[in-house]
Amino acid sequence: MIEALAQRAKQAAILTASLSRQTKDDALAAVARALRDRQDQIIQANQNDLRRAENEQLAKPLLKRLRFDQAKLDDAIAGIQSLIKLDDPVGRTLNALELDAGLELYRVACPIGVLGIVFESRPDALVQISTLALKSGNAVLLKGGSEASETNRILADIIEQASVHAQVPPGWIALLETRQDVKAMLALDQYIDLIIPRGSNAFVRFIMDNTRIPVLGHADGICHLYIDRDADLAKARRIALDAKCQYAAVCNALETLLVDAAIAATFLPTIQQTYQQANVQLRGDARTVQIIDCAPATDQDWRTEYNDLILSVKIVDDLDDALTHINTFGSRHTDAIVTENKDTAQRFMSLVDSANVFWNCSTRFADGFRYGLGAEVGISTNKIHARGPVGLDGLTTYKWKLLGTDHVVADYAKGNMSFTHRPLDKKCPL
Amino acid sequence: MIEALAQRAKQAAILTASLSRQTKDDALAAVARALRDRQDQIIQANQNDLRRAENEQLAKPLLKRLRFDQAKLDDAIAGIQSLIKLDDPVGRTLNALELDAGLELYRVACPIGVLGIVFESRPDALVQISTLALKSGNAVLLKGGSEASETNRILADIIEQASVHAQVPPGWIALLETRQDVKAMLALDQYIDLIIPRGSNAFVRFIMDNTRIPVLGHADGICHLYIDRDADLAKARRIALDAKCQYAAVCNALETLLVDAAIAATFLPTIQQTYQQANVQLRGDARTVQIIDCAPATDQDWRTEYNDLILSVKIVDDLDDALTHINTFGSRHTDAIVTENKDTAQRFMSLVDSANVFWNCSTRFADGFRYGLGAEVGISTNKIHARGPVGLDGLTTYKWKLLGTDHVVADYAKGNMSFTHRPLDKKCPL
Repeated sequence: MIEALAQRAKQAAILTASLSRQTKDDALAAVARALRDRQDQIIQANQNDLRRAENEQLAKPLLKRLRFDQAKLDDAIAGIQSLIKLDDPVGRTLNALELDAGLELYRVACPIGVLGIVFESRPDALVQISTLALKSGNAVLLKGGSEASETNRILADIIEQASVHAQVPPGWIALLETRQDVKAMLALDQYIDLIIPRGSNAFVRFIMDNTRIPVLGHADGICHLYIDRDADLAKARRIALDAKCQYAAVCNALETLLVDAAIAATFLPTIQQTYQQANVQLRGDARTVQIIDCAPATDQDWRTEYNDLILSVKIVDDLDDALTHINTFGSRHTDAIVTENKDTAQRFMSLVDSANVFWNCSTRFADGFRYGLGAEVGISTNKIHARGPVGLDGLTTYKWKLLGTDHVVADYAKGNMSFTHRPLDKKCPL
Repeated sequence: MIEALAQRAKQAAILTASLSRQTKDDALAAVARALRDRQDQIIQANQNDLRRAENEQLAKPLLKRLRFDQAKLDDAIAGIQSLIKLDDPVGRTLNALELDAGLELYRVACPIGVLGIVFESRPDALVQISTLALKSGNAVLLKGGSEASETNRILADIIEQASVHAQVPPGWIALLETRQDVKAMLALDQYIDLIIPRGSNAFVRFIMDNTRIPVLGHADGICHLYIDRDADLAKARRIALDAKCQYAAVCNALETLLVDAAIAATFLPTIQQTYQQANVQLRGDARTVQIIDCAPATDQDWRTEYNDLILSVKIVDDLDDALTHINTFGSRHTDAIVTENKDTAQRFMSLVDSANVFWNCSTRFADGFRYGLGAEVGISTNKIHARGPVGLDGLTTYKWKLLGTDHVVADYAKGNMSFTHRPLDKKCPL
């Protein structure tokens, strides 16, 4: 059953790969209209999900994420409108090289194929992910939270109907319903090209352990801010406050503050005050608790993503000590330095092995919208393929197109002909 | 033990990431000199391996691959000299965007980190892979064929000594010796960023099934050539001959010839003659055997990489029938069309879901050297990260560097400030 859906998605993906920008944007506009036309049904379905979730006594934050009301629908439709305005990520010529007269090599962006995406309870994620997949020419198998099943079903229905009516091949989108479906999907490496799990660290690892399909995702976001001896301490306070408190529940929020020993006695009392006013609970290492009054941190704190108004604080001897801490305990997500010394900043940015490395600004900037990527699928802490915020480009790969006029390798192997390898400044003609 | 090597490699990788081009190229030159200086020892070690392999009655082709003599050493040293001439793949600014005044985002190429590479019996692969890793700033754990153990040990020794003496951090290269070592490596996802297995399809699948580390590799190379009704049949013969026979034992050689029904009666008898002269054995589908005298093909033939002078031949109804065959039985490696019709070529290149899609030229061009990439690590049939021939660029990823001057997200969230998202035409200043 899931195999049939995946096979159908694969066949559709071959065709969605060659859809024109116009067809894709028309289909996105049709989806936006259909969501608007059927908004009452959507909101009704979501209220059924909410009622069931309340009866099952789901936790408050989950109920909040599950809600898909008029405002959420408006946001989702606005997201589709902005997506329509973005350039087509498919078909761009990434490189062009003449191998020899009449033998031209082009590297051209194309969709990945079939994406398997498992996401958390928010139904808006379904709209965002499926429209990103459509714009980038991919087919998609989606599994949302079971508590949102009625909402997800009607959303997927509307998106499929409207897009297929607008000439997108049927089968390009399919909804999985159960955990068994997900397990079945993980085995289908002949049809599915990439799995994107959005969820807890443990969940992402479970996925990685149970599939040979490549997995794009992020585990924890244990972000650091290092306040260097050459920092402007007023900037340091402003940035430290924003990084921890602007929105504490997210992966790019600050979890560990590292303070250079040379300025710790000056800086810590003032930042303590700043954080007290913002209700942030501090946990300090042995040296920190000698300067300010706070709970002691254990080694476990350095490995913890609080996602809450809690912050671990450590005094480090110098930049190198900070680098060692970050590269040992960090999660390769986002790490920042505050310093007025450019050489120190350069060394930090070069030697921190993370997707996002920042100088004199808040870790909270690590985000696809702020990076100008349009919407994002998520933030990748993988080292291969897409790293950091993943937008439309992260949902593409490339193919090599070689255009010849009767060229064979034997001529080059025998030395009758030789390669020119001359860069070309033109787009692939087909 | 393997964990200690991997941890050491990870520490080294942080430092190799920031080596200057000069240091890396000097180290490569030192490696080339040391290989030359100690060539007698290397050849002696290889003769010990060869003698042992002969005693153990290793197959002839394996013995041939194992041999590392003066000529092979000269080639390896010449390879290092060309590598020195290539641009540094690390540090390039891939994108630059002003997010707001004084807040600049750069996407900058950087090494992947620690590579785990398992390769077949050829000792020259050890030299090629480790020097590619050094040029791209990566650390590397290597496991070669056990039959080449003495040769590999002395090569790895020389490369480590010469490079470390030239200021490359110790521990950047380490040699694994046993299958148990490889198994241990597959579990070390906290230290190793990418596994590159070179070997049989079954071996690559075994690796994928036993690690959560991303795997870059290729399975089979089942390459197709489709002769369209609008083909120039003289070109078709030349290309079909080269694709199958120029070097039959490799992954980009032709395995299945697809012939448009409209020209089959004309084309098949002539191509049969061409292949007879080249000692190629044909296996035809039901329609083919009615036109020419050859063995019948079974469904298994469409899935077989012969790596030998055997070719399966199938008559297809039209382009779409060819596309369905290739996307069903192909291995997403390299597929080519011969036609004088540009629209047909365009449709083929757009709808064949393979790393390399060729028009009027031989599949044998799918190769890193011919593509102008310098040396190659291998050919990837993955859809993510690097696809097709993988050179130095395939061993890099990127990091996002954000340079601010006291920027916090709260100002943008509150609407006090807004993003400019203005493309910048400059390199990352640090």
